[in-house]
Amino acid sequence: MRKSLYTNAAHRYAIGIDMGGTNTVFALVDTGGRIIASGSIKTCGGDAETFFDSLAHSIMTMTRSAGVPVASITGCGIGAPCADYRTGMIEAATDLPWPSPIPVGDMLQSRLDIPVTVSNDANAAAVGEMLYGVAKGMRDFILLTLGTGVGSGIVADGRLLTGHRGFAGELGHASVSLGEGRICGCGRKDCVQTYCSAGGVTITARRMLIKHGLPDNESLTAREVGEAADRDEQWAVETMEYTGTVLGRACSDFLTFSDPEAIILFGGVANAFRHLVPSMRRALEENSLSLYRNRVKILLSGLKESDAALLGSAALAFAK
Amino acid sequence: MRKSLYTNAAHRYAIGIDMGGTNTVFALVDTGGRIIASGSIKTCGGDAETFFDSLAHSIMTMTRSAGVPVASITGCGIGAPCADYRTGMIEAATDLPWPSPIPVGDMLQSRLDIPVTVSNDANAAAVGEMLYGVAKGMRDFILLTLGTGVGSGIVADGRLLTGHRGFAGELGHASVSLGEGRICGCGRKDCVQTYCSAGGVTITARRMLIKHGLPDNESLTAREVGEAADRDEQWAVETMEYTGTVLGRACSDFLTFSDPEAIILFGGVANAFRHLVPSMRRALEENSLSLYRNRVKILLSGLKESDAALLGSAALAFAK
Repeated sequence: MRKSLYTNAAHRYAIGIDMGGTNTVFALVDTGGRIIASGSIKTCGGDAETFFDSLAHSIMTMTRSAGVPVASITGCGIGAPCADYRTGMIEAATDLPWPSPIPVGDMLQSRLDIPVTVSNDANAAAVGEMLYGVAKGMRDFILLTLGTGVGSGIVADGRLLTGHRGFAGELGHASVSLGEGRICGCGRKDCVQTYCSAGGVTITARRMLIKHGLPDNESLTAREVGEAADRDEQWAVETMEYTGTVLGRACSDFLTFSDPEAIILFGGVANAFRHLVPSMRRALEENSLSLYRNRVKILLSGLKESDAALLGSAALAFAK
Repeated sequence: MRKSLYTNAAHRYAIGIDMGGTNTVFALVDTGGRIIASGSIKTCGGDAETFFDSLAHSIMTMTRSAGVPVASITGCGIGAPCADYRTGMIEAATDLPWPSPIPVGDMLQSRLDIPVTVSNDANAAAVGEMLYGVAKGMRDFILLTLGTGVGSGIVADGRLLTGHRGFAGELGHASVSLGEGRICGCGRKDCVQTYCSAGGVTITARRMLIKHGLPDNESLTAREVGEAADRDEQWAVETMEYTGTVLGRACSDFLTFSDPEAIILFGGVANAFRHLVPSMRRALEENSLSLYRNRVKILLSGLKESDAALLGSAALAFAK
């Protein structure tokens, strides 16, 4: 058995950054996976240069306030959409406000003067989940991040799947065989993301409102749909059922790839876990090859909403 | 860099077996990947006990004829559909004539008295391709076997993907979003296999015959379709174009999983490679996320039709 890549810490602290389509969260993490301090800034607004100035400034302010000298920080890990861990570039990110490619690694390293490791945000979350969350001890699982977009981190035989060019695990852009024809931000049709992201859920929800003879709501959010489902409002319950069904069908194909022990749901939409899972489980079993039936766990992330990505990014920095 | 799992040979020879839905081929292989002797028997006809009696007898006859003593044979590897490498069982094989599960490992080991390693036939082919074929030196690729069924072997970061229970890489049963509704032997609809296996090709071909005002042919084979395409017969050319299109669409989803360097086609249907590839390439690029476009190689197996699985099975036996 090989030793984990992710436990060889040379210094006591690392910075973990989770760069999302809306917010960018950062934290100072110690080798035991404890978050010592954290902060957040908006991802949108201004150009990329201004954003990284502001991010670096916020991080330096945080470490100073925590009384941690730069010399004891081993490095910084960034989890970001469509990031190539080999080049430190974000390529073709459809969920970020700046034109791609974006050399995030270089842009932050020049400002912070510590080594920066860049990884897909969902990959970072998967590593966090494996080290500190519900995937502790698992060697084969798929983490799906259901947020502004849908991302994934795939762990096979205890190792993060990275792929030939570092772009393994873009399951949010696998296609769903439903035929509704929803257009994705990537320009293609019927990607998992068009149904299971926050935006996908609100598209479904607004149709459900109309179906139930209720007034449309242009500013509806996925969080509000989840809250309405908690209050047993039928349109919202059916929205989550539909989302779970799409997710289950999509996952039945994912099983044919890596035969995982578990599928772990993470992110804003996953907060409605109890409303998603019954239909997701049903669709997964109905559509799976008999080999895989009644075997795969469906789990909710064991970490606080943004912690998994922060801890995962920090762990990647420790490993570098 | 880790040393390959597959080169630690204790003895000079291994037996490699490729168990297909129609024929079972076996070979005596040396540590250099040379096939010293080989043979073949029909997989169908009789029960499983009779089949393994006959297989063991044929193998012993072959090794005796080659003058190789049993003491210099390190073991035997079997590549078979739906095989679980951990238990040595074939589970739920829809392409074999016997009820599942079938304890192939035990059944052959008790007859041959040498260690037997069981693996998915397509996984074995992928290992063969990596050691001796067009995937030499590649660390990330997907091998698709287009034969009686459609199987796959996925190599990620230089290692065969096996999965939590040994059933990774059943991509022949991933679903294709075409909506034709073809029923698969597994009981589900629109599996890749229903379009890209030999049987899938003949279903398409018979429709093309009718479309072109030609007489239907109930006994048509995929090989005959390939030969007709070689003679530029339009119905056959269009059949292969359609098959390539389905394959390209399916592969566009596979890329989101493991970001492979290449997709390698293997097996009977792949003999029509030059007729398949233009439409496959077109569909792959049209349906792929921009991250993956114009990057992935589509290659024909570099090994003689049955050699890859035989060499792969033997290599797994050397590694045991």
